[in-house]
Amino acid sequence: MSLLSDVLASVFTRNARRALPPPDDARSTEALIADLLSSNAEVSGMTTAAQILDRYAGFDDAARIAFFDHLASDLGVDFATTRSALDAFEADPGPRSYGAFLKAAEPARQELARRLNRVPGATPQLVAMRADLLRLIPRQDARARIDLDFRHLFASWFNRGFLVLRRINWESPAQVLEKIIEYEAVHAIDSWDDLRRRVQPTDRRCFAFFHPAMPDEPLIFVEVALTKGIPGSVQRLLAEDRAPLAAEEADTAVFYSISNCQDGLAGISFGNSLIKQVAEDLAAELPDLKTFVTLSPIPLLTRWLQEEGTDPTTLDDAGLRAAAARFLLTAKRADGLPYDPVSRFHLGNGAYVHAVHSGADTSAKGMAESAGAMVNYRYDPETFAENHERFARAQEVVASREVRALLKTPAPA
Amino acid sequence: MSLLSDVLASVFTRNARRALPPPDDARSTEALIADLLSSNAEVSGMTTAAQILDRYAGFDDAARIAFFDHLASDLGVDFATTRSALDAFEADPGPRSYGAFLKAAEPARQELARRLNRVPGATPQLVAMRADLLRLIPRQDARARIDLDFRHLFASWFNRGFLVLRRINWESPAQVLEKIIEYEAVHAIDSWDDLRRRVQPTDRRCFAFFHPAMPDEPLIFVEVALTKGIPGSVQRLLAEDRAPLAAEEADTAVFYSISNCQDGLAGISFGNSLIKQVAEDLAAELPDLKTFVTLSPIPLLTRWLQEEGTDPTTLDDAGLRAAAARFLLTAKRADGLPYDPVSRFHLGNGAYVHAVHSGADTSAKGMAESAGAMVNYRYDPETFAENHERFARAQEVVASREVRALLKTPAPA
Amino acid sequence: MSLLSDVLASVFTRNARRALPPPDDARSTEALIADLLSSNAEVSGMTTAAQILDRYAGFDDAARIAFFDHLASDLGVDFATTRSALDAFEADPGPRSYGAFLKAAEPARQELARRLNRVPGATPQLVAMRADLLRLIPRQDARARIDLDFRHLFASWFNRGFLVLRRINWESPAQVLEKIIEYEAVHAIDSWDDLRRRVQPTDRRCFAFFHPAMPDEPLIFVEVALTKGIPGSVQRLLAEDRAPLAAEEADTAVFYSISNCQDGLAGISFGNSLIKQVAEDLAAELPDLKTFVTLSPIPLLTRWLQEEGTDPTTLDDAGLRAAAARFLLTAKRADGLPYDPVSRFHLGNGAYVHAVHSGADTSAKGMAESAGAMVNYRYDPETFAENHERFARAQEVVASREVRALLKTPAPA
Amino acid sequence: MSLLSDVLASVFTRNARRALPPPDDARSTEALIADLLSSNAEVSGMTTAAQILDRYAGFDDAARIAFFDHLASDLGVDFATTRSALDAFEADPGPRSYGAFLKAAEPARQELARRLNRVPGATPQLVAMRADLLRLIPRQDARARIDLDFRHLFASWFNRGFLVLRRINWESPAQVLEKIIEYEAVHAIDSWDDLRRRVQPTDRRCFAFFHPAMPDEPLIFVEVALTKGIPGSVQRLLAEDRAPLAAEEADTAVFYSISNCQDGLAGISFGNSLIKQVAEDLAAELPDLKTFVTLSPIPLLTRWLQEEGTDPTTLDDAGLRAAAARFLLTAKRADGLPYDPVSRFHLGNGAYVHAVHSGADTSAKGMAESAGAMVNYRYDPETFAENHERFARAQEVVASREVRALLKTPAPA
Repeated sequence: MSLLSDVLASVFTRNARRALPPPDDARSTEALIADLLSSNAEVSGMTTAAQILDRYAGFDDAARIAFFDHLASDLGVDFATTRSALDAFEADPGPRSYGAFLKAAEPARQELARRLNRVPGATPQLVAMRADLLRLIPRQDARARIDLDFRHLFASWFNRGFLVLRRINWESPAQVLEKIIEYEAVHAIDSWDDLRRRVQPTDRRCFAFFHPAMPDEPLIFVEVALTKGIPGSVQRLLAEDRAPLAAEEADTAVFYSISNCQDGLAGISFGNSLIKQVAEDLAAELPDLKTFVTLSPIPLLTRWLQEEGTDPTTLDDAGLRAAAARFLLTAKRADGLPYDPVSRFHLGNGAYVHAVHSGADTSAKGMAESAGAMVNYRYDPETFAENHERFARAQEVVASREVRALLKTPAPA
Repeated sequence: MSLLSDVLASVFTRNARRALPPPDDARSTEALIADLLSSNAEVSGMTTAAQILDRYAGFDDAARIAFFDHLASDLGVDFATTRSALDAFEADPGPRSYGAFLKAAEPARQELARRLNRVPGATPQLVAMRADLLRLIPRQDARARIDLDFRHLFASWFNRGFLVLRRINWESPAQVLEKIIEYEAVHAIDSWDDLRRRVQPTDRRCFAFFHPAMPDEPLIFVEVALTKGIPGSVQRLLAEDRAPLAAEEADTAVFYSISNCQDGLAGISFGNSLIKQVAEDLAAELPDLKTFVTLSPIPLLTRWLQEEGTDPTTLDDAGLRAAAARFLLTAKRADGLPYDPVSRFHLGNGAYVHAVHSGADTSAKGMAESAGAMVNYRYDPETFAENHERFARAQEVVASREVRALLKTPAPA
Repeated sequence: MSLLSDVLASVFTRNARRALPPPDDARSTEALIADLLSSNAEVSGMTTAAQILDRYAGFDDAARIAFFDHLASDLGVDFATTRSALDAFEADPGPRSYGAFLKAAEPARQELARRLNRVPGATPQLVAMRADLLRLIPRQDARARIDLDFRHLFASWFNRGFLVLRRINWESPAQVLEKIIEYEAVHAIDSWDDLRRRVQPTDRRCFAFFHPAMPDEPLIFVEVALTKGIPGSVQRLLAEDRAPLAAEEADTAVFYSISNCQDGLAGISFGNSLIKQVAEDLAAELPDLKTFVTLSPIPLLTRWLQEEGTDPTTLDDAGLRAAAARFLLTAKRADGLPYDPVSRFHLGNGAYVHAVHSGADTSAKGMAESAGAMVNYRYDPETFAENHERFARAQEVVASREVRALLKTPAPA
Repeated sequence: MSLLSDVLASVFTRNARRALPPPDDARSTEALIADLLSSNAEVSGMTTAAQILDRYAGFDDAARIAFFDHLASDLGVDFATTRSALDAFEADPGPRSYGAFLKAAEPARQELARRLNRVPGATPQLVAMRADLLRLIPRQDARARIDLDFRHLFASWFNRGFLVLRRINWESPAQVLEKIIEYEAVHAIDSWDDLRRRVQPTDRRCFAFFHPAMPDEPLIFVEVALTKGIPGSVQRLLAEDRAPLAAEEADTAVFYSISNCQDGLAGISFGNSLIKQVAEDLAAELPDLKTFVTLSPIPLLTRWLQEEGTDPTTLDDAGLRAAAARFLLTAKRADGLPYDPVSRFHLGNGAYVHAVHSGADTSAKGMAESAGAMVNYRYDPETFAENHERFARAQEVVASREVRALLKTPAPA
């Protein structure tokens, strides 16, 4: 019943939105923004906010850049006001002086975003606005600082506590499923039949985080294969003619693909929570699942080997595995973190390097990037915290004994 | 499907929470908080956050005050750091310096609240925490400034765009309905039968705002009567033996009671949005509804009349109505706003004083507070913006010609 | 999504029904029925059917009896037609002759009921019609035979495969909960607070069967207490000040009340399925639940003892338990089945007599009916089939060794 | 709440079914059936019924035919018993004699089907069983009479009052949508993109009837185009590059495809109800919709013209339209009903022939079957009943003046 009402409510709200287009307004966008930020906003704000959003939606890139210019130049922090508010607060640190300081230190564009968000359906539009910002304003540009305001707000709005984990399967709405096809970033889904093979068989699972204000838009999703034993080949894992395993017979859950869906939520990290929540839920549902691993690409292996002067195509299986282990355990960036981005993600989550495989991804992309090598990162609840600690404090890459042993393999002459 | 998964997800999450009590931890609460605020939080943060919340739940008032002391004293803004970050930002206003400034200017207790909120079910606990704060720390106390941080966060989290309007009726879950009974603040509901008379008849409606992270907790609700003509007596409006009107026959929607439910959300204003959304939805559903009014108490009328030297019990009907009109239109606080709090709310929303009635609330409370007088504030979409403007800019109280005419009635000798 | 649409559909359908009252029709009810049974029915049948139902709803008892007279006298089986169809079928048993026979042998009132049922919302009205029939026409009356047609149809429509088991708890809609209060037949629920004690604590469950065409109407429900050990007192089981047990700690599920809700479904047996389905579901949810028993009244014990010349109030505890055991194991009706109706129900389901208790129901009703004695019938999946077999074939009452031992207690002198 | 519980219930039920495979049983299927039909069935019937269904599912066609033989030969009506029950009932027509007659006159295989249906998920299996029967046993075969028992039961179970109308759109579950692709019988859907064009644009609708016991299986669905004016070309109606119309701007709803989905429900008519319910719902949602028509094929036109000695490819547009009108209005079967099956369906529903078009279906199939001609049947609530009456009583084909005028066109020389 509550469910029904929720959805009715949002359906009606959406309709209401569409049915009442804001009246044309001759004022400039800057004037509309000023109006929305004025005290008037409680009463007429919804209409003004809707107008701004509709106008923005119609902007071309140049107009959007001008819009961001306005946010950066005119809706920021006033240095003098902030400084004197800080002084007054330090002199007499009570509620009133603190309030004045908080108000001064927060740029008006944050309040603008909150007021825009009051319009039904605004949240995905604001997320898209940030995606525009990241696309149109270079990172080094001083105006790029306004991204910090979006990011600050979105980190608060998309707090883990507000996200809902949903299973994606063949009963999911087509409009959600087509987004899975669109956003899959690791192993492309090339048709609805391919999609079905990822979500329908008894030994396949897919989970996504959603936000209640964007119910049709997955934020991030993970594809899971249930297996007996830890797999060493993604082609075998995804083989069309594979006989599906009954879920109850699996002992291992393999996170073989994890994809972010929203460019406008870049830097708001959901992956760690997603993997752990899914692992917990699967463990509760299937008590025989004992092992949680990834089957991950090593996207920079070829490049690094070439930089090192090695032609990966000359390596035999043993040589490739040794090279991959050396890469994962020893190749670092200037800041001491692993060279490989996938590695940084999983090690940062507290996983460790469990095994490396040759001949594991024989697709064109897999051969080009890593000569077919892949890696299992293992998520073990018992060692999460310690692994993370060692990685965070000392950039230490934890690996299984087997992988460490590979380091002792003599490098190819 | 999405509905089911949502609820399954939240059900499982709740169970997971309960099934995995955080392990006992000998560390002090301060140490747990420090840990949660450290970089470690991504990995082990959920457990630490759950421990802090569970510990807080077990605190007595003294321990809660100590907890707030810690937030106020140790997790605030560092003046020196903020000042130098501000200087650096002014000197070179790029993304990096801006980020440093934002971080310095925001007290760590805001980040603490966000990290606590990652725990499933934490949102209502944080709202309850603020209710404790408001109850335990006097407003004038310097520590009361930490309320501004809660309020800032909650204004963002409980943004109108995240709220869901739900109809409350006799199909609603009992656990929601019992909260309507508990929270009704205007005309008390004294039994389930009384509640049923407020929500089930064809000419009664009740609507509430909910937040997805607190699905069982109404935030604010409004009770509506559908009538023919504008009513002038709440007892007749709520009479048990009344013959219900078919909704389609009504021409008027009467907002006769509006109640906030969450002490911990004090000052986060939902009422304006609620009334307007409900009016819009009702107008869409029932095209013959043309008039939207309140039937409101005048809680300070008696007190004001007595301050003015008038004994309200000596007034006849005409005299009382004239006195009520004079009170509503002319009695002001030092800041120029109306003396009457209900009046401030509705006039601030853009409503105007439509009519005053004697003999309108003959309950003990009604007779004591206003000698039985009540008032209709009228919400007219065509005059919202202008009324609000006049009230906001010049504290002007807009009233109907009829009510203004009452001012010309000579005051009782 | 599918859920939403379902409910939207039914909501819209109901509205559609209400919005389009069938036009007034001067024809007699008999004429309307004849029209509905004609071939015309595919096209205009919905309106005609709605008219008949609306007209019936407005009938007083006399008009309803006349309606049933018409069903009995004019819409039954024609002997001559049936006989000749049977002859023709026997002579040449093909699809055509068989179809003619089936048509002849089924009274037209069955087809009438099916056509009436096409109207949205008709199913509960037809169930209510049968309740009228059972109330207004004595069982021995020849016209009572038309009940067999209702019963035949309802047994098909309310087939176990179409029923949905739903848990009733404090999140259930108020309009369902009030029906639980109304229909509870064993231990009356005297207020909403009392109801809450039956459904909300961690050690209480309530389940009901529903039919999709009557979503607000429970058909039958069972109340369950989760306990440690088998209880021997209903007052202790339902004590207000009882400390609830965590569900996971229980080893026993006690079915302490089972109530049919629909007079119009008398004789369509759901109880057996309900108890077994609930037992299965609880066992799956709570693996530590090992014992499934009732705590049942012995409603005819006092009467039987008095017939036997024993004054139950003179018995001590041991004497009463011995008397109860003797009653349950030996008191039979003329047809060889147990004298006690509750006993017939549970033994017929395959349960056996597990234990008898004195001082078990000290309510006025319990003291009057059974001097306070109660009985546990035990549902043991391993012995269901055999117990039932022994009971069904030989009217044998299976009982535990302990209860059988009570038979050896010498009867009071 | 009710929604959730419903689905949980069915989910658990399905799991329960799968989790508890019926034990292997050495008895013959005939013995299992006899057991299920015995009085024992209340207790152990669920397991026995599940065994029979599982066994049937594993049968090859020969075994299925043997199964149907058993139903026909051994579980039918006993002539002698029925005759004597009829005699006894006629002699003393009371409830008891009537009950005995009803029992005798109904073949045991109907009770068998009801008992099989108690197993969760059995309903679609029984529908599939009838599909097998229709496929394997020729219509003229005497054993085909058992189909009348299935048909009788299904007409009762799938009564209009139990069906739920659901909109199918791009939010529908993929597993429902793939069935729309599979079952579309009029204008094939060749991909998910094609499907999307049928259900997602603002001027397209799709509705299906579902039964609660088969929630994933549409029974029948209709595709609707919202247009301005009545269309005369299906290729233009379905053109990929068409600019969609806002639903509110449409004045006409075109039922351009209606497809039955379940072979096992052949002869249980849903189409009439579906079209009328959809027309009603659309009229309520979109008040500007005034015209409800089909755009239908004329599948037998070419064949009939050739029989008449006319080569349709020699006709010009006017000639083809005249020929089509003559065919629709005058070509009859031996029983006086129209030669064209689509025509029989719509005229039987009370629609009339509104217009005929040449060049309306230029697909290979359309050219072959009807030289590209199509027809609009119009559903006008004001003339439903009368049209139907004229058609049912006198086989009169109602047509618009325009179409009737085409009859006066001289036939091609």
